[in-house]
Amino acid sequence: MSELFDSVLAAGPVAETTSDPAWLQAMLDVEAALASAQADVGLIEREHADAIGAACVAESYDVAELGRAATGIGNPAGPLVRALTERVGGAAARHVHSGATSQDVLDSAAMLVAKRSIASLLGDVRAAGDAAAALASDHIATVQVGRTLSQHALPVTFGLVAAGWLSALGNAEESLASVRLPVQLGGAAGTLASLGSEGPAVASAMAARLGLAEPVLPWHTDRTTIARLAGALGETAGAVSGIARTVVLLAQTDVGEVVEQGPEGSGGSSTMPHKRNPVAAVAALASAKRAPGLVADLLAAMEQEHQRAAGAWHAEWLPLTDLLRGTGSAAHWLRTSLGRLRADPARMRANLDSGRGLLLAERVTTELAPSVGRLAAHDAVTACCARAVADGTPLADVLEADPLVGKQLSAGRITELLDPAGYLGSAEEFVRRVLAAHREKTGEATP
Amino acid sequence: MSELFDSVLAAGPVAETTSDPAWLQAMLDVEAALASAQADVGLIEREHADAIGAACVAESYDVAELGRAATGIGNPAGPLVRALTERVGGAAARHVHSGATSQDVLDSAAMLVAKRSIASLLGDVRAAGDAAAALASDHIATVQVGRTLSQHALPVTFGLVAAGWLSALGNAEESLASVRLPVQLGGAAGTLASLGSEGPAVASAMAARLGLAEPVLPWHTDRTTIARLAGALGETAGAVSGIARTVVLLAQTDVGEVVEQGPEGSGGSSTMPHKRNPVAAVAALASAKRAPGLVADLLAAMEQEHQRAAGAWHAEWLPLTDLLRGTGSAAHWLRTSLGRLRADPARMRANLDSGRGLLLAERVTTELAPSVGRLAAHDAVTACCARAVADGTPLADVLEADPLVGKQLSAGRITELLDPAGYLGSAEEFVRRVLAAHREKTGEATP
Amino acid sequence: MSELFDSVLAAGPVAETTSDPAWLQAMLDVEAALASAQADVGLIEREHADAIGAACVAESYDVAELGRAATGIGNPAGPLVRALTERVGGAAARHVHSGATSQDVLDSAAMLVAKRSIASLLGDVRAAGDAAAALASDHIATVQVGRTLSQHALPVTFGLVAAGWLSALGNAEESLASVRLPVQLGGAAGTLASLGSEGPAVASAMAARLGLAEPVLPWHTDRTTIARLAGALGETAGAVSGIARTVVLLAQTDVGEVVEQGPEGSGGSSTMPHKRNPVAAVAALASAKRAPGLVADLLAAMEQEHQRAAGAWHAEWLPLTDLLRGTGSAAHWLRTSLGRLRADPARMRANLDSGRGLLLAERVTTELAPSVGRLAAHDAVTACCARAVADGTPLADVLEADPLVGKQLSAGRITELLDPAGYLGSAEEFVRRVLAAHREKTGEATP
Amino acid sequence: MSELFDSVLAAGPVAETTSDPAWLQAMLDVEAALASAQADVGLIEREHADAIGAACVAESYDVAELGRAATGIGNPAGPLVRALTERVGGAAARHVHSGATSQDVLDSAAMLVAKRSIASLLGDVRAAGDAAAALASDHIATVQVGRTLSQHALPVTFGLVAAGWLSALGNAEESLASVRLPVQLGGAAGTLASLGSEGPAVASAMAARLGLAEPVLPWHTDRTTIARLAGALGETAGAVSGIARTVVLLAQTDVGEVVEQGPEGSGGSSTMPHKRNPVAAVAALASAKRAPGLVADLLAAMEQEHQRAAGAWHAEWLPLTDLLRGTGSAAHWLRTSLGRLRADPARMRANLDSGRGLLLAERVTTELAPSVGRLAAHDAVTACCARAVADGTPLADVLEADPLVGKQLSAGRITELLDPAGYLGSAEEFVRRVLAAHREKTGEATP
Repeated sequence: MSELFDSVLAAGPVAETTSDPAWLQAMLDVEAALASAQADVGLIEREHADAIGAACVAESYDVAELGRAATGIGNPAGPLVRALTERVGGAAARHVHSGATSQDVLDSAAMLVAKRSIASLLGDVRAAGDAAAALASDHIATVQVGRTLSQHALPVTFGLVAAGWLSALGNAEESLASVRLPVQLGGAAGTLASLGSEGPAVASAMAARLGLAEPVLPWHTDRTTIARLAGALGETAGAVSGIARTVVLLAQTDVGEVVEQGPEGSGGSSTMPHKRNPVAAVAALASAKRAPGLVADLLAAMEQEHQRAAGAWHAEWLPLTDLLRGTGSAAHWLRTSLGRLRADPARMRANLDSGRGLLLAERVTTELAPSVGRLAAHDAVTACCARAVADGTPLADVLEADPLVGKQLSAGRITELLDPAGYLGSAEEFVRRVLAAHREKTGEATP
Repeated sequence: MSELFDSVLAAGPVAETTSDPAWLQAMLDVEAALASAQADVGLIEREHADAIGAACVAESYDVAELGRAATGIGNPAGPLVRALTERVGGAAARHVHSGATSQDVLDSAAMLVAKRSIASLLGDVRAAGDAAAALASDHIATVQVGRTLSQHALPVTFGLVAAGWLSALGNAEESLASVRLPVQLGGAAGTLASLGSEGPAVASAMAARLGLAEPVLPWHTDRTTIARLAGALGETAGAVSGIARTVVLLAQTDVGEVVEQGPEGSGGSSTMPHKRNPVAAVAALASAKRAPGLVADLLAAMEQEHQRAAGAWHAEWLPLTDLLRGTGSAAHWLRTSLGRLRADPARMRANLDSGRGLLLAERVTTELAPSVGRLAAHDAVTACCARAVADGTPLADVLEADPLVGKQLSAGRITELLDPAGYLGSAEEFVRRVLAAHREKTGEATP
Repeated sequence: MSELFDSVLAAGPVAETTSDPAWLQAMLDVEAALASAQADVGLIEREHADAIGAACVAESYDVAELGRAATGIGNPAGPLVRALTERVGGAAARHVHSGATSQDVLDSAAMLVAKRSIASLLGDVRAAGDAAAALASDHIATVQVGRTLSQHALPVTFGLVAAGWLSALGNAEESLASVRLPVQLGGAAGTLASLGSEGPAVASAMAARLGLAEPVLPWHTDRTTIARLAGALGETAGAVSGIARTVVLLAQTDVGEVVEQGPEGSGGSSTMPHKRNPVAAVAALASAKRAPGLVADLLAAMEQEHQRAAGAWHAEWLPLTDLLRGTGSAAHWLRTSLGRLRADPARMRANLDSGRGLLLAERVTTELAPSVGRLAAHDAVTACCARAVADGTPLADVLEADPLVGKQLSAGRITELLDPAGYLGSAEEFVRRVLAAHREKTGEATP
Repeated sequence: MSELFDSVLAAGPVAETTSDPAWLQAMLDVEAALASAQADVGLIEREHADAIGAACVAESYDVAELGRAATGIGNPAGPLVRALTERVGGAAARHVHSGATSQDVLDSAAMLVAKRSIASLLGDVRAAGDAAAALASDHIATVQVGRTLSQHALPVTFGLVAAGWLSALGNAEESLASVRLPVQLGGAAGTLASLGSEGPAVASAMAARLGLAEPVLPWHTDRTTIARLAGALGETAGAVSGIARTVVLLAQTDVGEVVEQGPEGSGGSSTMPHKRNPVAAVAALASAKRAPGLVADLLAAMEQEHQRAAGAWHAEWLPLTDLLRGTGSAAHWLRTSLGRLRADPARMRANLDSGRGLLLAERVTTELAPSVGRLAAHDAVTACCARAVADGTPLADVLEADPLVGKQLSAGRITELLDPAGYLGSAEEFVRRVLAAHREKTGEATP
């Protein structure tokens, strides 16, 4: 959490759901649910549980002081339990944290923080998807140069490009939504020994109260849950990065096919008044770029030993928080970028035309292949392209003059073959498919 | 692929399913399916598809030569298409690779390699799970010291430990089994333009023939599929690492609670004839440790631009192959380790007894808490423990002599409270739950 | 920066040198030095530079407000320049930030933050080294079991172990101390165009004023400096991790050869009053575990294009800050751990004796090898060890009874060979070498 | 090592220096040097050492068989020692591997492999630098658009761009050249016990024979050396990635400022005959992208415990090999790319002119600032730029017509200010500095 950099690198609602107060409240929610669950199964009196619950309000505690006190035992749950116990006081105090260990509180709190953050994140991912859907729909017939390995390749539509973004975001959304987040309750060594035979029942009631899943057994050193969460977040950040990079490239001054139409002052440069930086896409990219290393740290920290690990568990707290924040920021900025994005169909057409027909060379090859063979067709067309480039002549003219090609194809057919709008394959079909799936998911009526 | 190191770091069947010949065959399977799919929808004649299919046998090609020829265009699909076209010859030759681009072949081949590797991997993960299940079942009542942050904590059972391993492996298995692997077919720029309006039908038929999923649209620069695959593999490797590390620690000479009973010659040392290294667990750990960085590389490579990326796509081939191999090796070695694992209940008991009762201190605290308050109980018991340690006296004696504790608890009750076998909480219940879930999944009858 | 977790994971002085105020002050120091440097070369009047310098005090600015304003252009330097210009006012205001671009300010500030953090970090690394030196010196003759691949291997001394730690810390220190930190000044596109021909002179004067190196040319997209810094920090964190892991293992209840003798309350457990967790080593380990992923993120962000990058540059700020904090925390906790560490020579001896002589088996092999051949010796001794283990007999007795061994060696010679203190090779010599090098570096007189 | 992908992703001489035979020969070189060193200090007879040395020829061994035999003990050094001992035979056989442990052989071999690979790598890095130097020199006056955050910014020269590349490569070279590679010799537990008091002398002689550094003490679990090596390689790969990405972007069809003029067939596309992919830069980028994750794995593996680690050490072999290969490939492809690179000054000029003067807006701001104040100047020029963009008018006309600007500046001065060649600041000076440093290093005479 950096006041200086977070508006760029931890933008959006996840900053709040992963803040120190949010973590603290999640820990308190866990303590409250633990007490209530014990009342649910009859281990303690309801009024004691209620007394504990009433003290579980983050605002009543000094986060910084709890943090500082964590030095002694190596985690902030210990100091919190002590502070909570004092605050509860009276007969109820003895039931605070009963049966649990520090890791139960921190793991369950992590699940709550993740649950709340994912809800926020999904809002931004979905909004970005909606923006992509609108672009896909609006530009279903807007022809654009397709680019592969940085070179002009074949015509596509901007609608197809945006549909690809929508599909990728939908995949990420699906992964995020399907992560199972279980409560943690195992006690000191995972046996729940101090709860007698009521351990599983308490865990079950606690899960229900927190809206978390109930695990088969405590997972103090089985970190597959963390791995799945990390994987889904890494997938989301990666999906954002590909889209944002493409936006940045389309917004290059040299390409100019899209622009982020942001509010006054956004995208300006301190020294170059004429610049219009795609600042939201740049910030999305920057935010997303933290993910791979953070995922790696979380996966490496899965090497947890015995009943509770020395160090590897503690090593999860910050990377998990940062991964949620970075991915949340990436999604938020992408939503902003796609919401601001204006396509320039005229510039798209101009860029397409700059290729003087070379772009459709493949189509001529395909047309020729049945009669002269694929490789012969390929070689002939390649030679024509080389000539067109060398002489600055339109490809149509060179093809017409070529002995092999000219013999097979009329001038009219060559013109037809080189028209980009006539060679879009299934682009429209793909866009329709993606939009239909999106509408189905969002429950929107087909127009 | 290293002949020198792979028997340690790429052990098991995945080495084969990710080998150069396996990749080559997968690429050829894709070309064959592409042709057959075009015959299925009537684009080409069946006999041409058959002729192409007949030439799609890896043994007929020189992998090294194809690899060398990849230098020119930057990927091995181009040279393979040329070689395949030559081999097919005649009228069918013109239909080779028709409509597809190099990335279609390599991405679809990657999905096939992944599919086949995951099948192998799952075999080892399941066998490791079965071995863990047997240990959990056999040792459901074998009392052992629970260790947290490297210190003796509370009693557990070795059955519970093994049940935790089984549960983690089950989670990894679930993740691996649920990865969706789609075919790739988009043509040069993702529109399938050269297939006219038949593109989606060809893709669908091709997916069916290869046993891959059918995507909504081509995913040339949407790498969420790769991310999910990487995530599931990273999760699996991480699950293995935690288990293997615990085995290594239990096998320490200083602990001696388990031993890998391998074949003659395994685990020996070249210079120390008395050593019995847990070589399978060590190799599992070493194999698993490659995963985090490889996952990070794959996630970072998701930043793919436009219609097909310059560099980031190519950057996936080796990390994906290596991640499959490393994770496969980790699973295979873990299967080996758990299959060889012999627990030593006597040593477990001796280690437990070495604590002179300190281990059950929590129980005394819990017993005292209702009457004297949790913090007061904690403080009193902590003081007794310190005295027991300082004087080398059994904790029972110190507790009995303590004014506060001795007044609350009888000597008999103290002895009872300090018996490890009487303080296992829900350990047995947890083991039963995990075993029941395992039996249900494997379809084994409950005994 | 997390108030809840930082006392564990961002402990020590680096937390302060990388805080928001520290970053802000560094940015202001850069603006002040830029103005002074322009006065130095005669581009602006000294009094204007002084007026700017006088306004460059972090306390005068609201970090959070500057951070929020960064949203518009994507970095906090822009808002700071605007705020600074307002504060300076008058004729001097026009010279604020003159010739520079946002990245100049942030890159130079990053170098200052790094410089100041490394100074703090080195203090902790050196203090940890001093503690290791004291342990090495005190325990130069304390015999201990050497452990390889988790098994008892041969005798070593605890002094040798500590000398190895000292040597590793010395290497890390050397790497940290040798990182070259250059000023950044390139202007909008790296030409310093707005400074006419005075650009290099201004950069040179600015470097001198900030105590940074002078680069050959601006390095806006050459991030080798960041890579070296990341490498040195990753190396340091890694060195800490190995030492801290070893401390944790030596402190296991099952081993008990060292204990962290911390202040009252440190290392306690909220639920298990008898535990003495090596909390400083655990926190060192946890802090160090963040480094690999952060280094990976910084290396991946080196792919910076053209004159100034879109996203990859912004992606450095948090990982660099976090890497400094995590490594600083690791070093600080290690210093604490080694400072608290108490060795237990009696327990070391007891653990050594628990092997009933098996540990010295290699020595018998070596003694036999010249007469009977290395492999024959190895096989014979291996067989004796197996018998000793199986029967629970001391190895000496088995060896004496063995036909081959008993014929070659007398009972007295066997006893001598199995004495650990007599088989320490060059352990003492190695310790002396390391201590001598340490004394030379620290300028301490040889006793 | 993949025959299918290595010509793209493990190109150049490092593939050979890191091959299985190269590793095997390095291990044999270590065994030979160990024997010779023992003869040097009088521990064994020279003729025995010679007999061992004579058997240390990789071609005499079956790599695959040794690899398979590694399964038993978990590393290939054990089987090699057995095979070597058999091959040497006679009286000398007993001295094979004497005093050493498997890790001594593998660590020292790793250092040799690294030394030889770095020598190869440096050849490619230097050749890439030479190519960059030629471009910098040839294009010292070739004006080009500078691009920041993907937008046209200010004019630069292509010579300055290439000089930046040269400088980054020089930094990487410096890091690679300064990595210290020490021999490893510690015996089973790092005491060299079986060599009596001669251990250090043997290690010293061995280091001299292998051309490796002599460490202060064995470094079995101090992996700072591996970290430095990894850091230098990661830095080199990162430097390549930035340059290669810039080449790819300059080679975009939409930019067209450079082209890779490769041999016939390189850069072609299987389906698009007109494409000229910058295949060498793409392959460089793809090769470099493996580095960050591999570095992370190596850094994470530094957590090595006790005398020799269980798993973390073994985990280094493949990432280290792959990191050398990937970085070597990146450097080799970059050398190829820069050697093939042809700049197109006319296209550079055309792209520059496409901005209709907006690019030089900063210069107008700077000119105005002293008279009207920096912010007022900035605001006025920004407004003019907006009008120029909106109306498609040249900026010169808008500025002339602006009340504030037109009053301060004459039409002639405005024309002068908007000439890109007149606003290059210290570009030429920076190029000259870099070239001078390069010439000094390479010993080339100044022309």
